[in-house]
Amino acid sequence: MESPNPDRGASESPAGPESWNWDPESFRAHGHRAVDWVADYLARVGELPVLPAVRPGDVARGLPEHPPEHGEPFDALLSDLDRVVVPGLTHWNHPGFFAYFGITASGPGILGELVASAFNTNGMLWKTSPATTEVEQHVLRWMLEMFDLPRDWFPQLVDTASIGTLVALAAAREAQADLEIRKEGLAAPGHPRLRAYASEQAHSSVEKALITLGLGQAGLRKIPTDESFRMDVRALRQAVEEDRADGWRPFAVIATVGTTSTTSVDPVSEIADLCREHRLWLHVDAAYAGTAALLPEMRAHFAGCDRADSYLMNPHKWMFVPIDCSAFYTAHPDVLQRAFQLVPDYLRTEPAAHATDLMNYGVQLGRRFRAIKLWWVIRTFGVEGLRSRVREHCRLARELARWIGSDDRFEISAPAPFSTVCFRGRWPGLPDEGEDAANEDLARRVSGHGPVFLATTRLRGRTTLRLAIGNLRSEESHVRLAWELLQSEHAAAGENAG
Amino acid sequence: MESPNPDRGASESPAGPESWNWDPESFRAHGHRAVDWVADYLARVGELPVLPAVRPGDVARGLPEHPPEHGEPFDALLSDLDRVVVPGLTHWNHPGFFAYFGITASGPGILGELVASAFNTNGMLWKTSPATTEVEQHVLRWMLEMFDLPRDWFPQLVDTASIGTLVALAAAREAQADLEIRKEGLAAPGHPRLRAYASEQAHSSVEKALITLGLGQAGLRKIPTDESFRMDVRALRQAVEEDRADGWRPFAVIATVGTTSTTSVDPVSEIADLCREHRLWLHVDAAYAGTAALLPEMRAHFAGCDRADSYLMNPHKWMFVPIDCSAFYTAHPDVLQRAFQLVPDYLRTEPAAHATDLMNYGVQLGRRFRAIKLWWVIRTFGVEGLRSRVREHCRLARELARWIGSDDRFEISAPAPFSTVCFRGRWPGLPDEGEDAANEDLARRVSGHGPVFLATTRLRGRTTLRLAIGNLRSEESHVRLAWELLQSEHAAAGENAG
Repeated sequence: MESPNPDRGASESPAGPESWNWDPESFRAHGHRAVDWVADYLARVGELPVLPAVRPGDVARGLPEHPPEHGEPFDALLSDLDRVVVPGLTHWNHPGFFAYFGITASGPGILGELVASAFNTNGMLWKTSPATTEVEQHVLRWMLEMFDLPRDWFPQLVDTASIGTLVALAAAREAQADLEIRKEGLAAPGHPRLRAYASEQAHSSVEKALITLGLGQAGLRKIPTDESFRMDVRALRQAVEEDRADGWRPFAVIATVGTTSTTSVDPVSEIADLCREHRLWLHVDAAYAGTAALLPEMRAHFAGCDRADSYLMNPHKWMFVPIDCSAFYTAHPDVLQRAFQLVPDYLRTEPAAHATDLMNYGVQLGRRFRAIKLWWVIRTFGVEGLRSRVREHCRLARELARWIGSDDRFEISAPAPFSTVCFRGRWPGLPDEGEDAANEDLARRVSGHGPVFLATTRLRGRTTLRLAIGNLRSEESHVRLAWELLQSEHAAAGENAG
Repeated sequence: MESPNPDRGASESPAGPESWNWDPESFRAHGHRAVDWVADYLARVGELPVLPAVRPGDVARGLPEHPPEHGEPFDALLSDLDRVVVPGLTHWNHPGFFAYFGITASGPGILGELVASAFNTNGMLWKTSPATTEVEQHVLRWMLEMFDLPRDWFPQLVDTASIGTLVALAAAREAQADLEIRKEGLAAPGHPRLRAYASEQAHSSVEKALITLGLGQAGLRKIPTDESFRMDVRALRQAVEEDRADGWRPFAVIATVGTTSTTSVDPVSEIADLCREHRLWLHVDAAYAGTAALLPEMRAHFAGCDRADSYLMNPHKWMFVPIDCSAFYTAHPDVLQRAFQLVPDYLRTEPAAHATDLMNYGVQLGRRFRAIKLWWVIRTFGVEGLRSRVREHCRLARELARWIGSDDRFEISAPAPFSTVCFRGRWPGLPDEGEDAANEDLARRVSGHGPVFLATTRLRGRTTLRLAIGNLRSEESHVRLAWELLQSEHAAAGENAG
């Protein structure tokens, strides 16, 4: 061991700053301070501006150019959170965060993650941590009951929906068994080109997955949507038949329940019929809206989902579990296994009957204990607690839509089946481009005040405001404040663009 | 809101068990208890058996069949950790964990993850949390200095080495610009088949990445190794030339510094020469051994790594950062961006000069604040603190190798350049298969006692024991105990197989 460093006077404990990596009592003391810091942060996050006032490079400039040669005391770590990090954060915890989709660091979620990182297990094999695998699959089976989905689906957690979509489409590709793609790849002589289908409103991760899988952007055909932004099944059918006639091999359809821009719901039952007829893999992306299946009154939106070959929803979106935590289900674990199983010599283990080695069902080998935070959130809220909050978010969205609908300076841009409302400011004197610029400006003005953050999207080529309610801490007062700011900034945004 | 539930007598606070999701003071109180629980667990983990005594299904049977309708108190969550989870864990924190590669839940790593999950930012764009992007890239640039690697490499964190390898090979594929693979996919008419090269000792994630990318198992040619398990560069050259002549298009070589079975080091400089000559992308996988580059006396093993096109090391392996945290570097961020950038309407943002949107450099859109735990570990230990521990692990491995080498019941199976030793028990009367079985049995016997967990691998077709030192808490006494158990179980393992 190297000799002790005489400069270590800055340490706050006699044993030096390193000791708390070793000594559970020092961990305890530092841990209490970290929890206190987090509690104070959570208490004041609603008073901070949602968006930070930093320019690119500001945060990095606040950090030392070189790594520290000697250990630093815990005080320095905590004070740098206040000095450098918090002023550079976009506060996703803020109750006025209405951009993208809201997510929540709930209490049990944060503490569940604390415990998971302390266990620091790698559940690649059942044997390498049985509880990591079994709690994960068990809690995900609870969720099938909570969402009224088929109880026999094979469950696993993945980090993000992007990876879930990739895994789903890799399985769909593998299901083309005659092509031996796992062995020979896609470019073997005589192979047909594969094509998947999703609506033009589907998430960008679908296109990214197809690029990654080697099918290219040409491997995705984007299907137009109807006036409610739902996939047009007639157009889908025509595309599949046309492509088949042209020598493509259609292999998968991605249907979305709750698209990202408008939260529209594709007609999954009809798509499932078509998939059965044409032997296409049906993946349902319910990353955001999947949580709404907790509510019996929302189940109609999920009709047909029970016929999916794979299904994904994100507990880290609207179910109050900290990021990252994505629930992936499939009716065909054997196909996933054919796509992904590889057992190297250093991971060979005596086969344990009825044990599941989750490394065989996806891309990543390493697997942390993500299920604890999910388990703790479900248990702490109870299913009724989750339901009541999700229901309240949907009620607030309906209220907001009502306010917007009754003010003729604004118009609703799309149906709002869940907790997200798309709308536009209107300035009758302005041409389309001017109105688009005014809506951009309106979002910027509203978000510039501090307590609210709204983002925009484009629908049918037009700039559209989007207010998504999903944070546990968002209440009626926050939605009302956003609406007041929208109203009060409307005139200035129009003048600026005019 | 739903009416309060009259059954809520089980709650430990007057406001009911749900209140602590809302109220920072309840979070504080529960957080202190969670920290105390973790501190107690860390204090006793060395006394638990490393491997749990559970059969498949035992953990799941300890959980309620149905999800709870009503919220449960925090007591129930904590007591289930003791009742169901801890008895079902493989304790990666145990100082006698010598299987696979050791990993560590260090104090600052655990608390860094607590803070990250409380911030719960999604750093997909710079704008969606500037500090998340900037702390990540800044700390990864510190590491380039710590490891003496090119300071201008573009850094990002990925979750696992599996994803890092996938991203590297996706970029290498995209670098075949004439093929327009992003647009057309791999099966466009007239496309050559692509092939990558790695040694037969390379990690299974290389093969999995090539399967995922649509190149198939045929897209990987495994190159034989020399007597020290290092890639044979003459064989590599021959393979590349042969394949080119046969119409394949060679596009990438994966060199490993610290292979998984023996921690052998491929001759990276010579491989880099060949890659330059043949215009192949060089990816260096230093997932485990990368940490050893902290030590000047180990730098010779990294000669040539500065010429890599992409490079990966795992702070979550030997650098005491909780899983998952993988550092990925590339000299060609423009190629990654060409491979992965897709900006959907709902994520369009005014371009901020000099801001990096990390979603454009990989598969996943979602990105949590993984850098905090890494930053806190480096700052708490200081670079000298990390060096001293890594150096000590290497010293312990040399000691163990010396003990083994001086006992003629055992033999060393491979060079041990870092902290992992491969060896075999010998039983001169036994045939090869018998000796293999005896070595399996020996690993099982040693691991059956409780305080030590060893795994096996296969080298040149022979079963080999493998003792990997990498946990922060592993000290000489633990290595010595493992060695004592190996010696005392040697005879019984031989009898059993004989």
